[in-house]
Amino acid sequence: MARRREEAAELRAIPITGIGEVRPGDSVAETIIAALRRQKLNLVAGDILVITHKIVSKAEARIVALDQVQPSPASRRWAAHYQLDARLVQLALEQARRVVRRKRGIIITETAHGFVCANSGVDASNVDGGRCAVLLPTDPDRSARQIRRAIRKRLGISVPVLITDSFGRPWREGLCEVAIGVAGMNPFRDFRRRRDPHGFRLRVSLEAVADELACMAGLASGKLTRSPACIIRGFTYELGRDGASSIIRPRKRDLFR
Amino acid sequence: MARRREEAAELRAIPITGIGEVRPGDSVAETIIAALRRQKLNLVAGDILVITHKIVSKAEARIVALDQVQPSPASRRWAAHYQLDARLVQLALEQARRVVRRKRGIIITETAHGFVCANSGVDASNVDGGRCAVLLPTDPDRSARQIRRAIRKRLGISVPVLITDSFGRPWREGLCEVAIGVAGMNPFRDFRRRRDPHGFRLRVSLEAVADELACMAGLASGKLTRSPACIIRGFTYELGRDGASSIIRPRKRDLFR
Repeated sequence: MARRREEAAELRAIPITGIGEVRPGDSVAETIIAALRRQKLNLVAGDILVITHKIVSKAEARIVALDQVQPSPASRRWAAHYQLDARLVQLALEQARRVVRRKRGIIITETAHGFVCANSGVDASNVDGGRCAVLLPTDPDRSARQIRRAIRKRLGISVPVLITDSFGRPWREGLCEVAIGVAGMNPFRDFRRRRDPHGFRLRVSLEAVADELACMAGLASGKLTRSPACIIRGFTYELGRDGASSIIRPRKRDLFR
Repeated sequence: MARRREEAAELRAIPITGIGEVRPGDSVAETIIAALRRQKLNLVAGDILVITHKIVSKAEARIVALDQVQPSPASRRWAAHYQLDARLVQLALEQARRVVRRKRGIIITETAHGFVCANSGVDASNVDGGRCAVLLPTDPDRSARQIRRAIRKRLGISVPVLITDSFGRPWREGLCEVAIGVAGMNPFRDFRRRRDPHGFRLRVSLEAVADELACMAGLASGKLTRSPACIIRGFTYELGRDGASSIIRPRKRDLFR
């Protein structure tokens, strides 16, 4: 009964506001803790901290000044044909382990991490008044673990940390947030061994809760406001050691790679 | 500034509990209104009502008794090879407009609606003590509009209605909720013409908020509890007339069909 009550409980997403520009070398944990203080908001047991990857990438200096990028002739040709920035095309290809599709100006790659997404997750941005590209963190699961540890050390509280990005999907228009880094919780909720209220075994029921939590945070954050992080409160997560890398379907089990 | 304050507001997902078994001919709107009464929960302006498709399908009699299904020899062979229920395989193929992939016991189809998903969304369930299959609603956008109208008529309040299902994804393990029916709101949040806090145009920024809201509701509902619907409160949606069919990427623009 305890579990049922918990599962029917209210969920909340509380945006963390007032996070300023994050610079290489900054501590993401300290930045968030300072913002929470200003907002008079406390992290409590059971909370989940969700952070958009951009501030993590910036803190980890995963930034490239676009005027330092030398696009190859092939990148130039492709970019010119589709009116893209050849330097961003170049970076997308450099960050890729493999090109999955390349058509009509869209480049879908498999990144070094194994994520399949557009442009290897490379994003144009503005840093210190110059035009830059922000790359994905080198190891977003490690980044999530580090932020989790730093928060535990400073606040004495253990909360799961998710790092997110916006990915497109085949077959459906629009982007949705996904978890690219996970620490401190099971990225899945597994109903496969349980039974529904009729006593039947549930058919397919591995739920990617980390991605659903990322979506929920995306709704709360907004892209125009400076709210690159939020707290999700009220979700009964399972403990676990697997990171977001466990969400990546192995290529041999994938029907679309 | 008004918009910024709104976007940084807290979001809540409130499960609607105590919804009993829904039978063919039942009114989904009345069932939900009765459950809200018992729960002493009011729908208020700005709320979004999210409903898992299963109760909508049952109300619309989109149920097939499995012992009435005659699998074709091909369905039997395929099912036997992968230890599946041949009747479910048969229904999945009958509900498909096209098979997108069929491999290792997994059937990915394009449904009559255009959704690309496993088994055409056909789900095994238990209805009145018999083993049944639940099909997707014939026109989930129309179902959403009907429920929205019925609620407006009875409660005098207009709320967007989303109908959801759990879909798998290429490249990533686990299921996430998606919106298969939408009424009363724009399924997307479009940042393409806006500028980020630095004044730069945002690159790719069509956000599939209807799918993200579906995910948020999925987290709140739980699959083991009887909470097939929830209220999302605090999300600033845009009005719009497009349904979930507008989320389906046209085949000619799709790189994976």
